[in-house]
Amino acid sequence: MNDISPSPMVNYLVRFDILSRHMQEMDMKIGVMGTGMVGHALAGKLAALGHEVMMAAREADNPKARDWAKSTGQRSGTYAEAAAFAEVVVFAVNGSALLSAAESAGPALAGKVVIDVTNPLDTSRDGMPVLIPEMSNTTSAGEMLQASHPEARVVKALNTMNCAVMVDPGRVPGQHDVFLCGNDDAAKATVSTLLRSFGWAAPIDLGPIEAARGMESMMPFWLRLWQALGTADFNYRIAR
Amino acid sequence: MNDISPSPMVNYLVRFDILSRHMQEMDMKIGVMGTGMVGHALAGKLAALGHEVMMAAREADNPKARDWAKSTGQRSGTYAEAAAFAEVVVFAVNGSALLSAAESAGPALAGKVVIDVTNPLDTSRDGMPVLIPEMSNTTSAGEMLQASHPEARVVKALNTMNCAVMVDPGRVPGQHDVFLCGNDDAAKATVSTLLRSFGWAAPIDLGPIEAARGMESMMPFWLRLWQALGTADFNYRIAR
Repeated sequence: MNDISPSPMVNYLVRFDILSRHMQEMDMKIGVMGTGMVGHALAGKLAALGHEVMMAAREADNPKARDWAKSTGQRSGTYAEAAAFAEVVVFAVNGSALLSAAESAGPALAGKVVIDVTNPLDTSRDGMPVLIPEMSNTTSAGEMLQASHPEARVVKALNTMNCAVMVDPGRVPGQHDVFLCGNDDAAKATVSTLLRSFGWAAPIDLGPIEAARGMESMMPFWLRLWQALGTADFNYRIAR
Repeated sequence: MNDISPSPMVNYLVRFDILSRHMQEMDMKIGVMGTGMVGHALAGKLAALGHEVMMAAREADNPKARDWAKSTGQRSGTYAEAAAFAEVVVFAVNGSALLSAAESAGPALAGKVVIDVTNPLDTSRDGMPVLIPEMSNTTSAGEMLQASHPEARVVKALNTMNCAVMVDPGRVPGQHDVFLCGNDDAAKATVSTLLRSFGWAAPIDLGPIEAARGMESMMPFWLRLWQALGTADFNYRIAR
């Protein structure tokens, strides 16, 4: 990349400059669908990294989205407005609301990188949540999202951990892993670059979007660990 | 334990002797239900550790169980014979066959420590196996086994990894974890001691047998990792 490197330090500075320009070029318009804890964690991190972020809700003028936009100097809008605005869309809604949110977002999702962070949990029952049977085991939220928008470039990622860890992997000491899957390799590369900008090492690619079945089936285990450990500041490391 | 320790070395030797006697006292009669890879791995390890092992099958004089017993100088028998013989019973059958195997084992399971290593996988479908819906999500193989034999002291363990790793955690480099759950604390302590004798550090206790839902829901994820990594020599480490 640079054939005349008079010293390692100069070489380092040249590389830093290339990296810096690369990161600036990566600044993107990102729509974060969802106004809960996960949406706020992701929107806040993406804005802090210099992206243009729209926090989106089902209805126009959602107070949580509007307040977030006001306090950060970013945007708020409806799911459809965020889908039209964004190059990358993140679904950070409740899993049970994913497909209706995607329907609201509409045809503008076509061609976009769509990051699905959801878990299809039924939280209406007493006790520990279970997976929604119609969205798990023989299918998954990720697959259903992809099937509902065949032209969207869906990548499942980040659903295997607490939202504070998603955007700050250093909260958990030592090495630990983030996973992704999807049918579009270029979309997975974009998500991988975003994840690295959050502080993650290279994600483990589990293959096509069908692997979302496996990623989402981690949540019942995660909930038991959460209960047993008494903290959400943990994550999986794949020892090998 | 030893008030007169003239030197650290002597102290070490005294402690080693106590540990050694403790391990001998732990030698137990163990029934291993299942003649497949998992059954062979566990029966072989338990026999090598000095336990008296009976490998059991549904039918009397199962050739795989008989051959194993002949080659190791151990025993073979039916599920019912193994349940009567053993202090500790390990179910290492296909998850779909667990409840009928437990029924064959019969009332002799009452009061015994019963280690459930199974995963309720439907392997009859094309492609990647899925969980058996009637044995997962809102229930689990472990819970159904406990419900079928209320007096058995069921502990779910070791189902989250390949059988070669179960009995030889050193196959996978670095630190990694084994989990267990069950309703009987003394039974969990016995299983924990057995696991330590296999080379494991202290297991992570996920609570009552209901947590088997979480442990068994790991298998769809494990299968995707297996496919992506191209090896079964991996395991989970909980970073925290």
